[in-house]
Amino acid sequence: MTAEPSGAPELPIALDAVGGDHGAPPNVAGAVQAAKAGVKVLLVGDQVKLHAELGKHPGAGALPLEVVDAPDVIGMDEHASDVRGRREASINVAAKLVKDGKAAALVSMGHSGATMAASLLTLGRLPGIDRPAILTHLPTRSGAVAVLDVGANADVKASYLAQWAQLASIYLRVVEARENPTVGLLSIGEEDHKGNAVTLEAHALLRAQAELNFYGNVEGGDVFKGTTDIVVTDGFTGNIVLKLAEGEARVLFGWVKDALSGGVLAKLGGLLVRDSLRAVAERMDPSTYGASILLGVRGLSYIGHGSADDRAVKNALLRAARAHESRLIERLSEQLKGTPA
Amino acid sequence: MTAEPSGAPELPIALDAVGGDHGAPPNVAGAVQAAKAGVKVLLVGDQVKLHAELGKHPGAGALPLEVVDAPDVIGMDEHASDVRGRREASINVAAKLVKDGKAAALVSMGHSGATMAASLLTLGRLPGIDRPAILTHLPTRSGAVAVLDVGANADVKASYLAQWAQLASIYLRVVEARENPTVGLLSIGEEDHKGNAVTLEAHALLRAQAELNFYGNVEGGDVFKGTTDIVVTDGFTGNIVLKLAEGEARVLFGWVKDALSGGVLAKLGGLLVRDSLRAVAERMDPSTYGASILLGVRGLSYIGHGSADDRAVKNALLRAARAHESRLIERLSEQLKGTPA
Repeated sequence: MTAEPSGAPELPIALDAVGGDHGAPPNVAGAVQAAKAGVKVLLVGDQVKLHAELGKHPGAGALPLEVVDAPDVIGMDEHASDVRGRREASINVAAKLVKDGKAAALVSMGHSGATMAASLLTLGRLPGIDRPAILTHLPTRSGAVAVLDVGANADVKASYLAQWAQLASIYLRVVEARENPTVGLLSIGEEDHKGNAVTLEAHALLRAQAELNFYGNVEGGDVFKGTTDIVVTDGFTGNIVLKLAEGEARVLFGWVKDALSGGVLAKLGGLLVRDSLRAVAERMDPSTYGASILLGVRGLSYIGHGSADDRAVKNALLRAARAHESRLIERLSEQLKGTPA
Repeated sequence: MTAEPSGAPELPIALDAVGGDHGAPPNVAGAVQAAKAGVKVLLVGDQVKLHAELGKHPGAGALPLEVVDAPDVIGMDEHASDVRGRREASINVAAKLVKDGKAAALVSMGHSGATMAASLLTLGRLPGIDRPAILTHLPTRSGAVAVLDVGANADVKASYLAQWAQLASIYLRVVEARENPTVGLLSIGEEDHKGNAVTLEAHALLRAQAELNFYGNVEGGDVFKGTTDIVVTDGFTGNIVLKLAEGEARVLFGWVKDALSGGVLAKLGGLLVRDSLRAVAERMDPSTYGASILLGVRGLSYIGHGSADDRAVKNALLRAARAHESRLIERLSEQLKGTPA
């Protein structure tokens, strides 16, 4: 992967290589694939396990992969607050590498709460940002929509939503070259006066920010319609939206599959349309994006599903490398300085 | 439609026959279909318009349909509070018929906020219920889930959620004969300690109600999975869930349709599987249920989509008649009296 004219230094991505439901195997396999695509990766975790896992990938020794030992790991059933004081935990070692300028970004499929906590404690916040938010992408009729927060903050203030709208707008400009992305505020009616106490206050704040391309309220039905480029919401609603969307797609495609195996004609038809339908299902596959970015911390941090497979790990590493090349954090820092806290 | 052994008096259903995006035509057509199925209907609205519309249905004169004049109507762009003092508005006349024991239920595809307000003001609340909630049904892998509140209350107290769990549990027992329905609290993690401030408090209240079959927290992905019979949530989140679910289904089925018309093989396959897929799409069609019930008021009140077609109107009328036969309101009143407010 060659550096852009912007001249971001070529740094490796730190992968929490033992995090997630399946431990090292999908992490190492995904890292090998990313390395083959030119991304340097630091595999952070128990070095004995990681070397053993690397040994299963012939030719991995010639790839830009390096193991960084971290003998401890935050288990999926531990509390996020357990990251405090666990210096040798893989997620803390990975965050420290980013903090010290030895890695461009961190990627973890491990404990989401622990990844957020480690990122916030080690990297700190960007200027003017009270709380970081998790931004994820959902497919729409017209492309994709960036939704945030999808789970970092269950209870919010209206001012957070206004800050997240800023973060997401700069993010889409820098990373996806969308010139003037539109921002929708998720609510229960298009009219300005519809919503709950927090969204009514947030609506006024968003309306007052001249540098935002604020569309106004959007409803649940607008998410997949792709009415706006960005949808801002609290982390409670956003998390439910994300999991509902994924769950509904699974159930609907399951029904379609069942429908295509009942009766001879349907079965025959099903065989003929199988590839077309697979392409549709692919759009809803979380592995396509690989991981969600934690926006608002002073460093690149990506949080993936605990159930991530090697493809998700690879795609997350590629996305992290691209964001680094675009100098996302530097540009967020510069552009946020100009806005009121 | 014959009365059940329970002996509910045979009363007509009051239909706000001029409400909704398309005015009288789908309402009258739906009422004619319901009347053919044995349900008596009072068509409430401008009598000149309604008689003219009825004239388009040959044989309607022989059906159990009656026009009740209401010269005024609350427009879709008016405020819900406009129902106050508008005695001749169709929704107020319909609510009054229920209040006076002249109709078994009211059904409206008109202004949702106005229907809620008219129901609450005219009918009052059931014992121990602070706020009524809208309950709707979503299809799941294993049948259907009852979700409430889907839009009556944008801001809630934890105690409302506990009351709604009660209402929905009695509702499913009475109307769908489900013996001991399970209740899930929509949140952002299965663990008891995950949620926002309101759900954490609601969790404790639900846990303390011995007469409920409380399952615990459910996540967004559990809705379509059908993990519980009932999902309780605030009206902000519930409204977004409902509209997201409908919107996503529309977009996903659109993609499937597109996929089945690209290329000769896919097209041929698409023809063979068309009927099977139509059956799948039907499960997500809001017309199948027709309307959602407003639970918590002292009378049967059904609120439908403004865009409802005749099939939705007919199904809503049939549902209302069945709920009346089951003596839903009487049984809610009896069973709620035994529970703490």
